[in-house]
Amino acid sequence: MANKKITKRDVDFAQWYTDVINAAHLSSYSNVKGCIILEPNGYAIWEMMQKTLDKMFKETGHKNVAMPMLIPENLLKKEGELVQGFAPEVAWVTMGGSKQLEERMCIRPTSETLFSDYYASIVKSYRDLPIKYNQWCNVMRWEKETRPFLRSREFWWQEGHTIHETQEEAEKETRDMLSVYEKFFREYLAIPAITGKKTEKEKFAGAEYSLTIEALMYNGVSLQSGTSHYFGQKFSKAYDIKFLNRENGYSYVYQTSWGVSSRMIGALIMVHSDDDGLVLPPKIAPLQVRIIPIGKDDDVKEYVNKYLETLTNSGLTVDVDNSEQSPGYRFAEAEVLGIPVRIEVGHRDLEKGTITIVRRDTKEKIQVLKDCDIVKVVKETLDAMQKEMLERATLRRDNMTYTAKTLEEFANIMNTTPGFIKADWCGDAECEAKIKEIRGTKSRCILENEKPLTGKCVVCGKEAKHLVLWGIQY
Amino acid sequence: MANKKITKRDVDFAQWYTDVINAAHLSSYSNVKGCIILEPNGYAIWEMMQKTLDKMFKETGHKNVAMPMLIPENLLKKEGELVQGFAPEVAWVTMGGSKQLEERMCIRPTSETLFSDYYASIVKSYRDLPIKYNQWCNVMRWEKETRPFLRSREFWWQEGHTIHETQEEAEKETRDMLSVYEKFFREYLAIPAITGKKTEKEKFAGAEYSLTIEALMYNGVSLQSGTSHYFGQKFSKAYDIKFLNRENGYSYVYQTSWGVSSRMIGALIMVHSDDDGLVLPPKIAPLQVRIIPIGKDDDVKEYVNKYLETLTNSGLTVDVDNSEQSPGYRFAEAEVLGIPVRIEVGHRDLEKGTITIVRRDTKEKIQVLKDCDIVKVVKETLDAMQKEMLERATLRRDNMTYTAKTLEEFANIMNTTPGFIKADWCGDAECEAKIKEIRGTKSRCILENEKPLTGKCVVCGKEAKHLVLWGIQY
Repeated sequence: MANKKITKRDVDFAQWYTDVINAAHLSSYSNVKGCIILEPNGYAIWEMMQKTLDKMFKETGHKNVAMPMLIPENLLKKEGELVQGFAPEVAWVTMGGSKQLEERMCIRPTSETLFSDYYASIVKSYRDLPIKYNQWCNVMRWEKETRPFLRSREFWWQEGHTIHETQEEAEKETRDMLSVYEKFFREYLAIPAITGKKTEKEKFAGAEYSLTIEALMYNGVSLQSGTSHYFGQKFSKAYDIKFLNRENGYSYVYQTSWGVSSRMIGALIMVHSDDDGLVLPPKIAPLQVRIIPIGKDDDVKEYVNKYLETLTNSGLTVDVDNSEQSPGYRFAEAEVLGIPVRIEVGHRDLEKGTITIVRRDTKEKIQVLKDCDIVKVVKETLDAMQKEMLERATLRRDNMTYTAKTLEEFANIMNTTPGFIKADWCGDAECEAKIKEIRGTKSRCILENEKPLTGKCVVCGKEAKHLVLWGIQY
Repeated sequence: MANKKITKRDVDFAQWYTDVINAAHLSSYSNVKGCIILEPNGYAIWEMMQKTLDKMFKETGHKNVAMPMLIPENLLKKEGELVQGFAPEVAWVTMGGSKQLEERMCIRPTSETLFSDYYASIVKSYRDLPIKYNQWCNVMRWEKETRPFLRSREFWWQEGHTIHETQEEAEKETRDMLSVYEKFFREYLAIPAITGKKTEKEKFAGAEYSLTIEALMYNGVSLQSGTSHYFGQKFSKAYDIKFLNRENGYSYVYQTSWGVSSRMIGALIMVHSDDDGLVLPPKIAPLQVRIIPIGKDDDVKEYVNKYLETLTNSGLTVDVDNSEQSPGYRFAEAEVLGIPVRIEVGHRDLEKGTITIVRRDTKEKIQVLKDCDIVKVVKETLDAMQKEMLERATLRRDNMTYTAKTLEEFANIMNTTPGFIKADWCGDAECEAKIKEIRGTKSRCILENEKPLTGKCVVCGKEAKHLVLWGIQY
């Protein structure tokens, strides 16, 4: 397994990405076109993400539900912008058994329609509000070009859908959930994401506005990594979600939705991994420590068992690689799989009173006394790794974030050293389209708390409304 | 919420079932025909089931994966019996976006085909075996008649799929997983299920044989609650899952699959609940304890906070109902929702030095000293409740399990006091069909470790091959 060849990251990034996925057994192509299989190692990462986020959602007052996976065409059509945005890319069920359906149904590409229909049936009074539900599910979008994790017809995600009495409360929810995502990326995935507002062109179909977290991959390409939408009353008016208000009249609810997906696994790979395979931040790694015995001497067995027990009891996830392969093969295997820390236990070292701890990210080998406080040493190593992975990713992102004051400067950067570019924009869709001509660069987000650089649009020179973050995207 | 009327269980069982689901907010009909919505209270029970079972699966060496939700028609057709069994009841996707698909695909009704296709691509040698994977997912079967949890077009389940080097190992897996299910039902759901083998007619399409756990509902109707199938080499030959064996030749793997579903929530209701709403075994209840303050005196607040903190820290799930409703309303509400224990804290009782603990199943009110070891008292109450719920369900099942030596006796029981009937069977499908004429009674399972009653088939009088458990089913 470990000897599967991985192309060098700096030679062919796309091939390197595919090679890492294969070598670490994260996912596999299936015989269902455009759909992937999440293999055990990939699914285990997804489980860690789910577990962590689910806790954060529950702590902020959200409850899980499950909606149907099908949407009748008429229900989908009630909100005009959404159906226009999604209809070209849905899978249609037209037959049940051997019978043609009277009304075709699509496999959900997203569930605003189903939640809105349900909320309309259960909300009576302002006392019922807010309602803050989430679901973990699979969705389907009939994409033409696919790439494991980043874009596939079926993917796995969570979608939160909330309704509120007031605009203020709904807008706060929209921002709060963006903050939850930003925090999850920073503290768990060790990815420093940029937050902001999507332009009109890039916002979600049907939203008043969309907030986004944008991450920068190792190769300078941007990845939209999570979004939080404010719908105002668009859906509540289309689906008739109204309630008895405090003045004894009827009002329509204010609504939000927000989601992150299995795409995050792609981000993890493209931000942190290297030529030897996967590198996982310790807080999201399904397996944090692997112990590798070298030889079968009694003292080796004794210390391996001792470490396994002590570390497991401390709450860490630990295993032992007892396979018959050579130590070198097993070291490489632990590296390919991205296990944050490996402990090498050999007879000769033990006689000298030591063992070796190796950090996956830096390959640093740490000699420690065999009778040291192993839990303390390993936890400190994991903590340092988690912290430094974020620091390195932040430094790289900052080094690859440019400013451009003219279109020439802009094009020059994107054509040579792509990354994030900060540049002023007048707010005009035509100027946005002009920038897209440069290697397909799109606006990532409006940087709401930053001031324009020059005050003039980088394309047309007219007065700038916003400082915008731009990038080539996956 | 609590004043929603629940029909008496002994008056109209079907209506009572629906009323309990509505009153406890477990699920809701959706505007997608035949599909339900799992509401927060229902989903929370499903999460508890998932968490518990997932741990049991992992402890027995299984790993989670995710397969595509669609199956191309050609892939589905490779194993003839399976496609015959499922083709009449699948939903077909025929269009992607605005384009007709070249090959239609069905939404998975079960995933033997996808796992087999995947296993064929990854298994090389006996060293790769066994492979023991599971997935938690939604599946779809185009049922005509539906009923919440028991039968709906979409449902949520887990499906384990394993492949093995030898027949012995695969058959052991088939039985081991049935034991896991039986244990889960007994220890967590407090439901005493009967295990056995399905007859040829009732087995899973494509299996060599199917094992089943069968539970008896309060009204004497049986519920097939989980199955474990042994496939032998049927799928491995159809999908070409072969491996280099120890003799350097090629062999086909031996295969199993096993599953339980959100139907278990229906079983929980129909075995344990009563005229006041849901009754949940403490080990599966998402919320185990509710504290209800009576009045707003300082001592009430003090003790409520103290109990909340102490009980939460002990690992129990606890909340406080601080709503403005009357105590009576809030007591009823806690009962409808099936919260195993409620603690009533009032000023007058506190002055006397006591509080009241109420068990949901028996309604028993226990007066305890306000400064007692509250964790100990509550845990003992929960343990007793868990134990006694199983004892009562077992007693009821045993009282409703009959034996019949003649067809008249058989018909008489089913027409008056339905339940499980044990009766001898010759093994002939015609006799099985004859019994179905009695209120649709089907064989539940062959009781493998029990001897025939009379030695003669209850229908035809010929020599009996098996003692069979029979029942009317959902």
